Parts: sequence; C-alpha cells; structure tokens
Amino acid sequence: MLYSFINSLDKLLKFKSAAAHCDIPCKIYDPSTAQIAALSVIRFIDIINELEQPLSVANTAQLARLVREKEIHASKVKEEVRVIWGDYFKQPQFDQFPDTHALVHSIMLTASKCKQHIDREHAEQLLALVNQFADSFWQTKGIATYQAKSPYPPSEHVVYPDLKSA
Amino acid sequence: MLYSFINSLDKLLKFKSAAAHCDIPCKIYDPSTAQIAALSVIRFIDIINELEQPLSVANTAQLARLVREKEIHASKVKEEVRVIWGDYFKQPQFDQFPDTHALVHSIMLTASKCKQHIDREHAEQLLALVNQFADSFWQTKGIATYQAKSPYPPSEHVVYPDLKSA
Amino acid sequence: MLYSFINSLDKLLKFKSAAAHCDIPCKIYDPSTAQIAALSVIRFIDIINELEQPLSVANTAQLARLVREKEIHASKVKEEVRVIWGDYFKQPQFDQFPDTHALVHSIMLTASKCKQHIDREHAEQLLALVNQFADSFWQTKGIATYQAKSPYPPSEHVVYPDLKSA
Amino acid sequence: MLYSFINSLDKLLKFKSAAAHCDIPCKIYDPSTAQIAALSVIRFIDIINELEQPLSVANTAQLARLVREKEIHASKVKEEVRVIWGDYFKQPQFDQFPDTHALVHSIMLTASKCKQHIDREHAEQLLALVNQFADSFWQTKGIATYQAKSPYPPSEHVVYPDLKSA
Amino acid sequence: MLYSFINSLDKLLKFKSAAAHCDIPCKIYDPSTAQIAALSVIRFIDIINELEQPLSVANTAQLARLVREKEIHASKVKEEVRVIWGDYFKQPQFDQFPDTHALVHSIMLTASKCKQHIDREHAEQLLALVNQFADSFWQTKGIATYQAKSPYPPSEHVVYPDLKSA
Amino acid sequence: MLYSFINSLDKLLKFKSAAAHCDIPCKIYDPSTAQIAALSVIRFIDIINELEQPLSVANTAQLARLVREKEIHASKVKEEVRVIWGDYFKQPQFDQFPDTHALVHSIMLTASKCKQHIDREHAEQLLALVNQFADSFWQTKGIATYQAKSPYPPSEHVVYPDLKSA
Repeated sequence: MLYSFINSLDKLLKFKSAAAHCDIPCKIYDPSTAQIAALSVIRFIDIINELEQPLSVANTAQLARLVREKEIHASKVKEEVRVIWGDYFKQPQFDQFPDTHALVHSIMLTASKCKQHIDREHAEQLLALVNQFADSFWQTKGIATYQAKSPYPPSEHVVYPDLKSA
Repeated sequence: MLYSFINSLDKLLKFKSAAAHCDIPCKIYDPSTAQIAALSVIRFIDIINELEQPLSVANTAQLARLVREKEIHASKVKEEVRVIWGDYFKQPQFDQFPDTHALVHSIMLTASKCKQHIDREHAEQLLALVNQFADSFWQTKGIATYQAKSPYPPSEHVVYPDLKSA
Repeated sequence: MLYSFINSLDKLLKFKSAAAHCDIPCKIYDPSTAQIAALSVIRFIDIINELEQPLSVANTAQLARLVREKEIHASKVKEEVRVIWGDYFKQPQFDQFPDTHALVHSIMLTASKCKQHIDREHAEQLLALVNQFADSFWQTKGIATYQAKSPYPPSEHVVYPDLKSA
Repeated sequence: MLYSFINSLDKLLKFKSAAAHCDIPCKIYDPSTAQIAALSVIRFIDIINELEQPLSVANTAQLARLVREKEIHASKVKEEVRVIWGDYFKQPQFDQFPDTHALVHSIMLTASKCKQHIDREHAEQLLALVNQFADSFWQTKGIATYQAKSPYPPSEHVVYPDLKSA
Repeated sequence: MLYSFINSLDKLLKFKSAAAHCDIPCKIYDPSTAQIAALSVIRFIDIINELEQPLSVANTAQLARLVREKEIHASKVKEEVRVIWGDYFKQPQFDQFPDTHALVHSIMLTASKCKQHIDREHAEQLLALVNQFADSFWQTKGIATYQAKSPYPPSEHVVYPDLKSA
Repeated sequence: MLYSFINSLDKLLKFKSAAAHCDIPCKIYDPSTAQIAALSVIRFIDIINELEQPLSVANTAQLARLVREKEIHASKVKEEVRVIWGDYFKQPQFDQFPDTHALVHSIMLTASKCKQHIDREHAEQLLALVNQFADSFWQTKGIATYQAKSPYPPSEHVVYPDLKSA
C-alpha cells in the first residue's frame, strides 16, 4: 500500500520540537511515585515467595490478592514513567540523555515481565531501571541525587533528589 | 431504637488493638504521594487564577480541565491519607500522636474545601496539614525529617524524611 | 527536628469547625451502600468456603474471582464510610457520638482483615461496625432505625432507617 | 451479506434460558444504589440551577464539578440497572414483567438525556423509571414495597422494600 | 402495593421515542471494541487451559492474572454493547431488528457465564452473539459486512464492516 | 553524583532483547481502539466549536462534558499506543521501523496538545500519527492496509487492515 496521507513525519516532528517549550503548562513531575510502585512490586514478590506450600485455600486467596496488587503496581510504574517521558521529556532532555527512549521502552518490557513472573530478579531490574530514569530526570532539572535504602521494606536502594543541599 | 446486636463496641475495639501487630502484612507506606497531590492542588488553583478574564471558550475548556484535575488530586490526598491512617496507625502510633484522628478528619474537610473553592488559602492549609501528618508518620518510624522547597512549582515547603543521615 | 511552619494545629482546626456549616453544599449521604458492600464481603467469604477441595483449576479460577470481588467490596466499605465521616460528620455530630473517630478507624482495620483473611468472623464484625455507624448516622439526622434481615443472602441483620413512620 | 455462522439465534437463546437457574451464583442485588444515584442527578441539577448568573470564574468551576458528578451518577444509574437486568432477570422475571426490556432501555435513554441537559424534568423521569424498575424487582422477589420521601435532598419519592413487615 | 406515582409508563416511553432523533448528539459507535474484548475472553480461556497441572505457585499466580483479565474483558463486552444498545438503538433500529433487546440480554447472560467458567464454549457463544450484534448494527447504518479471521489469536471469525467497497 | 549501582544499562538492555520472543504470552493487539479514540477527539473538538456563543449555563455545562470526554479519549490514545509499543514492539519490529520510538513520543506530545487546546489541527495531527503507527503495526505483522473514511463522524481517513484479501 502506498501510504500517502502523511506527506512527511519529519514535518510533523519538526513542528513538535519547535513548539515544545511554550505550549505545555508547567507541571509537577516526580518519579518517586514510580519508584515506590517498583519497590512495591519487589515487596509483593517477596511475600508471594514466603507463602507456605502446598498452598491452602487461604493462601491461594492471599496469592490472588498479591498478584492483583503486583499487576496494579507494575502498571503504575508503566503509567507514571510514560507520563514523565511523554509530557516532560523534549529535545533538550533527549540531547542530555539520548538513550531515554530505549530506557523507557526497557522499563515497559521489564514491568511486563514482573507481571508475568514471580521472580525477584525481574523486579530488581525494574527498580534499577526506574532509578536510572529518576536519576536522569533530576539531572535534567539540575538537581543532584543520592542513594539511600528505602525507609520501609524491601529496603532496596533508591535514587532520591538531594533537596537538603539545594 | 434500642440498638442491641452489638453488645459492646469496646469489646470489638479491644480485640482490634490487641491483634494489631501480627495480622497485618508489613506494607509500604509513604506520605509523599499525598504531599505531591496537595502540591498539585495548589498548582491547579494558581493556574486557574491566572486564566485571562472574561473566559473565552478555550479558557472555559481549560478551566474545566483544571477543575477536573483539582478534584482528582484533592480526592487522592484523602485516599492516600486514609490508607496510611486506616492501615498503619494503631495504638502505639496513637499514643505517640493522640491528635491523629482529628488531624486526619481535618485533612478530609480541608480537601473538600479545596474541591469546592478556588482560593489558594484552603490549598495551603491542606498542604500544611498533610505535612503535619507526614511529619508524625516519619516520627513514628524513628526517622528524622527536614523541610525543603518542592523542586517544582508551586515551590512550597514540604516535609521530607532525612534518609541521607539515616 | 523542630517543626515550625505550622504554628498551631489548633488554630487550623478552630478555623475549620467554625466554618463547618456554611461552606459545604448539602449532599446526599446514605450508609446503605457501605452496608450492602459489607454484606457482600460476608457473602463472598461464604462462597469461598463452599468451594470443593482440593481446588480444581476451575475452582482456583473461581476463587481468584471471589477474592477480587472481596477486595473491591471491602475497599468500597472503607471508601463509603470515609466519605460520610470525612464530609458529613462535624462538631455537632461528634458531640452526639464522641466515639465516631474510633469507630471509623476500627471499620478501616476490620475491612483490612476481611481483605487479608477468609474467615467469616471478621466480615461479621465489619457488618456490625458498619451497622453501628449507620445507626449513629441516622440518629444524627433524627431518623429512627430498625433492624431487619437483608432480603438477600447472606440474610444478616442490617440497620435500616424507619422512613415509613417518618 | 449472508450471515451464516450463527445458524440460529433461537438455539442459543434456548440454551440460555434452560441453563438459567443453576449456573449463576446467588448474588446480592439491590436497586437502592441506582435510586440514590438518580436522586443525586436531580440534586446536582437543582444546585446547577441555583448558581448565580452570569457565572463568575468560581461558579464556572463549580459548574464543571457539578457536571462531572452528574455524569458519574447518571452513568452509575445505567450501570447498576444493567447489572440487575443483565444478571438477575431471566425468563420467570420477564414472564412477570414483560415490559422490562423496554423499561431498562428507557432508563438508558433517559439517563443519557440527564447527562446532556440540565433540566429537572429529565431527572425526575429518570427517578420515576428507576423506581418502577425497583418496584418490579422487589415484586419478583415477593417483597412488598412502599413509597416515602428520601431522607435527604432532593426529598423526592422513592420506592423502598417493606422489610419491617417481612 | 398499588403503584401509583407513574401514571403511565407508556406515556413516558412515547415521549422518549418521539424525542429520539433530535436531542442526542451524533456520536461515534463501533462494535469492534466489544468484538476485540470477546476475542480476548476466548484467548484467556485458551491460555488458562494450557497451564500445566498440577498448578505450581507460579502458575497459580498466572491463573489469577488470566482470571482478572477475563473478568475485565467480559465486563468490557457488557459495557460496550450496553452503550451502543442504550444510546444508539431507538425505534427505527428496533423496527429493523425486533430481537435486539433479547440479543443484548443474551450477551449479558453469556458474558456472565464467561466470567464464571473457564469453558471455551461459553466464550465462543459470546463472540457469536457479539458478531450478531455487530452485524445488526452495521446493517442499521446501511453498511455491508463480511467475515474474516481475526488477524491475531484466537483467529476466530469476526464480522467486519466492508468499508473498502463503501 | 557517581551513579554506580547499575554497572551498565547496555547489559540490561541486551538481556532484554535476547529474552524478547519467548517469555511474553501471545497477546491481542489492535490499534483500532486508539484510532477510534483519536477520531473521537476530533469529533469532540468539532462539537465544542459548534457551541453557540456567548455560552449559556446549559452550554457551559455541555462544554464541561465535552472537555471531560476529550480528556478521557486523548488519554486513551496515549494508553493504547503505549501498550502496543511497550508490549509488542521489540527488536525485529524496531529494525523494520526505526523511528517508532520518536513516533510514539510524538503521539504522546500531540495527545497532550489535544487535551490543552480546542483546535482541530492538533487532533487531525493526532489521528495522522496514530494512523502512521497503525500502518507500521500491521506491516510488522505482514498484513496489508488500506485507507477509508470512518463510517461515522468525523468521517476522516483511517488506516484499516485489509483482512478481506488475507
């Protein structure tokens, strides 16, 4: 098929990047919500793996709850990252972090794996990728970051903005 | 009417507080989501008040969007605070902060005011109350807090956990 | 940390209770939705406990459905009660029922137990507490109540407003 | 087009009605939720019509909130009625109330009108139709009904099941 | 009970059908969303039935996910069909397809069966009924249809509008 | 800050692309839902621009409804495209369409513009981009496409898969 009704994607994209900084209202973006959701995914997987086997009816019910929460929080990671990437990141940010498209896409795939499996490894990767994304985000805003253990289980390292020194 | 089928509310409540620490799975609670939502309410009100008057059709449409987001984020404040209060706070936390019930109820009323009005004052009060709640929360976990301006508009003071020194 | 940016919670709360009766639109509150949700939680637990064991794949699937509905309805209890408590109850209602904060908090904890477990006892307690809340609510409005069995399973006693005699 | 892959709709429908009473779990149906939503639609329209004109920015914001709530509650009427009709009503109930399909369809159309307009008349019709539906429902269960004014605004007549005499 | 406050349902219904064509905004209706959801229900059932038995914890978790998706998509079928039936179908369409009420009701019951069971047969019936509904819909708009296999699993026959020849 | 806890994003990404084809269940992807949502955005903007001015209260209410629907459908475009891009597109598809990341990001930005404005131009661009995405998608599956006018307003050109010839 001859696909003719868009003459040029480039033309459209050019329009977009030129218009970037003036027509979007300044919004509040904060990757912490995605990071908390990624921590939650690890946590739910930990609790799943602690369930006594063979599964009793009560524990099968508990598993169904944990799976549902895991689904919801893995989707939340996708959604929150998509919003920051799709609304905030524009040409200047991509110039600073050219791999952002690939990083975001990788977060989507890894979050899907976390939905499909109950292995901790995928969830740890998800958190690592989301931390990477958070680190990039804060750098584009000129805000230094530091790592610390989350003050609640699963006590994994999280990238935080260093607001105290700011 | 003689309300007889609950012999004693006290009996029920006693059961509850005795059972508190063992039958709830350790969960991830973080008031930052409520704080971001409260900041967002201030921000939407600021943008509403910057709309040029008299309202054009385009600006009436924009107002409808901003009101919708304000509704959603004020409800999110209520929801997030309700979860931490209703799931995490139990007798030991209430012993430490006996006014928590009143504080949480006040957050509910103030969030309602933020939905009903477009005055910045209510939204500033909401953030102050949610910060107060966050401060209590971190104290019950033995984590020091500090204040800093949010690294995005509306650049208001927010209570953060001091994880760097932890 | 010296928490200084709210000089006084009391000041805020005072403002709130003074402003209570004029700035809230008259709304429609009805605890029946919470009561139906609490009945549903009992019902789902009954059906869960009737599943033939060991669980076949079909029954494991059915269990997952029932757990999901139980989650949704227990959350609905929390949400509906939170709305009436957080929007409608103010100083005059608290004067009439000083234990309301504790009752509402107890509903939150008990609804959480209903999510975590498949024991009928927690769900019966939840209904009892929600009935207690409904009874208080109708009394604050000067409407008498009566008890009757719900006209559908699980046929438990429910507090209804006596509108016929009104 | 010759539509051949369903040989006979009748065959499918026959299967359906034969299978009706054994394979559906006994559920909790209660039209009160739809009735409360219909009352709410009337109420929101009343408040809309009380807004001072010409609309200030604050009142335009309030109107946007009221419209949103009206949308949500009119959709809730549709959803709640669809569930009872689509899950509970089967051949025996249709034998008793042969006009139920038409009544339910009429509720859908009238709820749409309530979304599209701000006239009280449509909302009153919606409540009347939902009351009619509730009355049929309770009759199919052999439960008498009575009318009373709702114990909150808009104080319209509502059909309630007579559980006291049951 | 003498149900008196609606003098006549006919009167209401008459009003409705007379008003049908002018007060509804022209909207976008497309049964394809319901058809995709029905295909998805078949697909989830296929994947459920491919799970290795006895179910491991990982597969019990996967089953919970599949059941949740099946619930969501079966509900989506109900919702999408209800919207087209309840918003678009009016007297002229019912004249053309007098069995539409029964067809739509049958879709509701069959979608419920798909939620309650994991048998492919119910899901195939659901797709057949939704295709029947789609076929009627396109005919009321004067658009021919054709059947083709869906270009993705479960590769079942779907009724499509013939837009190429239009 | 030295960001050390991810040694190498490349390592993670490599793992990902290697694992791509075996651990994702075959799913049902169909861009038609995004295309219908994009058409709806154009339609809502058309109806908004037909509202009589100056806006009466009834029309201000109608505008609030239209804006809400526009928000919901523009978000739906984002969500549906994100799912196909984030779940289905992997290395082989990116090899075939190397600009997909940029195209998807452009859809996000354009959908945001459609939310912020009431100009038809943005919505037409959105549809063009979503059509471009749909065309790529069908090509990756080896299915030819054709253009036809949507069989409902706004009667814009849409890319459809050519299933008849398949």
